[in-house]
Amino acid sequence: MSFIEQMKFCSHCGNKISFGDIPGDDLQRFFCKSCQTIHYQNPKIIVGCLPRWEEKVLLCKRAISPRKGLWTLPSGYLENGEDVEQGAKRETEEEANADVEIIRLFTVYSIPHIGQVYLQFLADLNNLDFYPGAESQEVRLFGKKEIPWEQIAFGAIKFTLEKYFNEQNLNSEVYMGTSNTR
Amino acid sequence: MSFIEQMKFCSHCGNKISFGDIPGDDLQRFFCKSCQTIHYQNPKIIVGCLPRWEEKVLLCKRAISPRKGLWTLPSGYLENGEDVEQGAKRETEEEANADVEIIRLFTVYSIPHIGQVYLQFLADLNNLDFYPGAESQEVRLFGKKEIPWEQIAFGAIKFTLEKYFNEQNLNSEVYMGTSNTR
Repeated sequence: MSFIEQMKFCSHCGNKISFGDIPGDDLQRFFCKSCQTIHYQNPKIIVGCLPRWEEKVLLCKRAISPRKGLWTLPSGYLENGEDVEQGAKRETEEEANADVEIIRLFTVYSIPHIGQVYLQFLADLNNLDFYPGAESQEVRLFGKKEIPWEQIAFGAIKFTLEKYFNEQNLNSEVYMGTSNTR
Repeated sequence: MSFIEQMKFCSHCGNKISFGDIPGDDLQRFFCKSCQTIHYQNPKIIVGCLPRWEEKVLLCKRAISPRKGLWTLPSGYLENGEDVEQGAKRETEEEANADVEIIRLFTVYSIPHIGQVYLQFLADLNNLDFYPGAESQEVRLFGKKEIPWEQIAFGAIKFTLEKYFNEQNLNSEVYMGTSNTR
């Protein structure tokens, strides 16, 4: 299962780690027979924005793996110490040097088999002074008919763009999705 | 900072771990000078339900720490391998043996200083056959005027209950909140 981060040693006592059933727990986990620590692993949150300017939206062409060369909305892992809106705004600054005002939460997309949950926000660009950050090759505005649908990097991003361009209720509904990929 | 899980040894190679600045990174992290592994830590997702029956909502009195003896909505850590709705439904079954139908996402509440994000769902009870799970002392329905406001276990739960009983738009709006506690 690809969501499991491999552990070989206990991060608490340094002894070799075990993996398997835990009494009173439905899931198998890493645990330490020496110091009895159970090492829980949980899904990670990815936050990002759908930055808008008139009828167009901003996409970033990825300069790094995975999916290098494909297009995405500016997004990345939420960090400790920030709330979800701060994280979405930070990622938009880092990947596109774009100054945005966050409008509202727009999509929540779970990817169970890799332990990820995307939270994407509608946002408005405050100006057009964006340019690629270190993780982007190119940053561009696209109208609905220009979106490179076959070159979108991630399912959660495609879901968000499809909802944005195809749904009528952009005022309040938060669209929920789950990846079916196994 | 209370969101940092202490590490003493590298879980990859077993050598002593370091903590500090990482080149090209704005945050301090655990890293291993021996095998060069950077150990990222990210916020965790807590999912739960606001289960409803007519004009009342279901609360659980906690049987475990933290906040033992205080009241909460059934909620807990999202696990790898499940989507956010599945996690919310599972927690509601575990803590209250309650059978619910999830209606929609209702609140998203970030707690930056402990690295948590709550996703709470409006849900309808399918029947009244609920009873306390292992982590609950008691499970009860409360009307608006009966809610034990001074004995609610967590800020995110109080936020959710306040929005539910005080806001007018229960049909579509997802309420966003951030803890100000430092």
